[in-house]
Amino acid sequence: MIPITDPRIEEYLRGLAPEDDTHLIAMEQRAKELAFPIVDRLVGRLLYLLTRLRQPQLVVELGSGFGYSAWWFARAVSITGTVVMTDRDGANLDYARTMFRQNGLIDRLEFREGDALEIGREYRDIDILFIDLDKEQYRLAAETMIPRLAKNALLIADNALWYGRVAEGGDDPETRGIREFNDFMCLRRDFFTTIIPLRDGVMLAYRLS
Amino acid sequence: MIPITDPRIEEYLRGLAPEDDTHLIAMEQRAKELAFPIVDRLVGRLLYLLTRLRQPQLVVELGSGFGYSAWWFARAVSITGTVVMTDRDGANLDYARTMFRQNGLIDRLEFREGDALEIGREYRDIDILFIDLDKEQYRLAAETMIPRLAKNALLIADNALWYGRVAEGGDDPETRGIREFNDFMCLRRDFFTTIIPLRDGVMLAYRLS
Ligand SMILES: C[S@@+](CC[C@H](N)C(=O)[O-])C[C@H]1O[C@@H](n2cnc3c(N)ncnc32)[C@H](O)[C@@H]1O
Ligand SMILES: C[S@@+](CC[C@H](N)C(=O)[O-])C[C@H]1O[C@@H](n2cnc3c(N)ncnc32)[C@H](O)[C@@H]1O
Repeated sequence: MIPITDPRIEEYLRGLAPEDDTHLIAMEQRAKELAFPIVDRLVGRLLYLLTRLRQPQLVVELGSGFGYSAWWFARAVSITGTVVMTDRDGANLDYARTMFRQNGLIDRLEFREGDALEIGREYRDIDILFIDLDKEQYRLAAETMIPRLAKNALLIADNALWYGRVAEGGDDPETRGIREFNDFMCLRRDFFTTIIPLRDGVMLAYRLS
Repeated sequence: MIPITDPRIEEYLRGLAPEDDTHLIAMEQRAKELAFPIVDRLVGRLLYLLTRLRQPQLVVELGSGFGYSAWWFARAVSITGTVVMTDRDGANLDYARTMFRQNGLIDRLEFREGDALEIGREYRDIDILFIDLDKEQYRLAAETMIPRLAKNALLIADNALWYGRVAEGGDDPETRGIREFNDFMCLRRDFFTTIIPLRDGVMLAYRLS
């Protein structure tokens, strides 16, 4: 496993960006206790900044967990914007519902329990699509959802470097899944795609038309 | 010195994003031969994507060298957009002028020889400001230019991690310059600021109003 960012750099960066929101800190704590994979704070900050830049009306997350990444999106969309959370585990969504009720952002969210791809295909004109579900499903997720994206949409995918294993020639189903997804997106001429080596790799793909 | 991104990751990422533009390749070659510090290709791709997302009318670069970063901005702005290049070294701008004449993008560029801060302060309503000049000048550059930024402007600065020295407690003037700049930007409430640990660190600061 290749360490993508040196821990001293990570620490310096976190020191520059202190956060005091109690829900955010509680979610980070919860992720640690449950060993639940959330995008971390630096990725969260990047999601926030990209969302502000894109000013989306509709954000769809495939694989929302208990709402950590959704918290960043929900804070960044305007009051008329919507963030759709999907997860197969209803308990995750229950946690998120309570959290977003408490912080007053609940009107910006939809909570959808079930298969993320089944639910995802109900939407149209998605401005930002965030992919963070099972790694074997990434390419299928892209194929299914690309026709549902708005003009100049931004597709964001977490774990595009998969602990560096994509670069080491790993051949387990998850590494293969991510590698196929990366190739699939990078070869498309209708997207401009790049991968940021932040934490576990964040793919950014901008729809060119 | 801390390696910010593992070389195997860098190689994987470059392999995903082949480029065949002859001017781009010539500039990369030239940078190597002259040991001239340009943002590299992965940073260039990030600049391109951010510029497409922001859709700026006016981009101002402080410290343009011979036009490598400007090449990415110029391709990403719309045909009505302008990219202002500044450099104290006229030979750099001559190179850039020839290159942009050949690739047909010259109408999108202004070539300004002289002190970047003197020239920079002539502009108003800057949508994207790119800072890449002498590292001791970063904080002064931010202070000078922030009043000249448009609503929801994006400030981008290269070398925000300065070979990792900012995280190692380095105390030379350049490291100190970058550290003061990072602190200055991250403490401001009118910007949302984050640093991407890509190559030598790219600061992204979004003006919140
Ligand atoms: C990596 S976690 C999501 C973390 C979340 N995006 C965050 O950063 O806070 C992946 C989640 O996706 C859910 N998941 C994976 N594949 C799914 C699928 N096909 N349909 C619905 N949920 C799925 C899992 O239950 C898990 O909660
Ligand atoms: C790091 S290089 C720029 C590279 C360029 N941004 C790129 O990525 O292709 C810095 C350049 O800024 C110029 N420079 C530094 N400080 C300056 C200043 N105060 N005024 C004008 N030019 C400056 C130097 O001459 C040099 O060409």
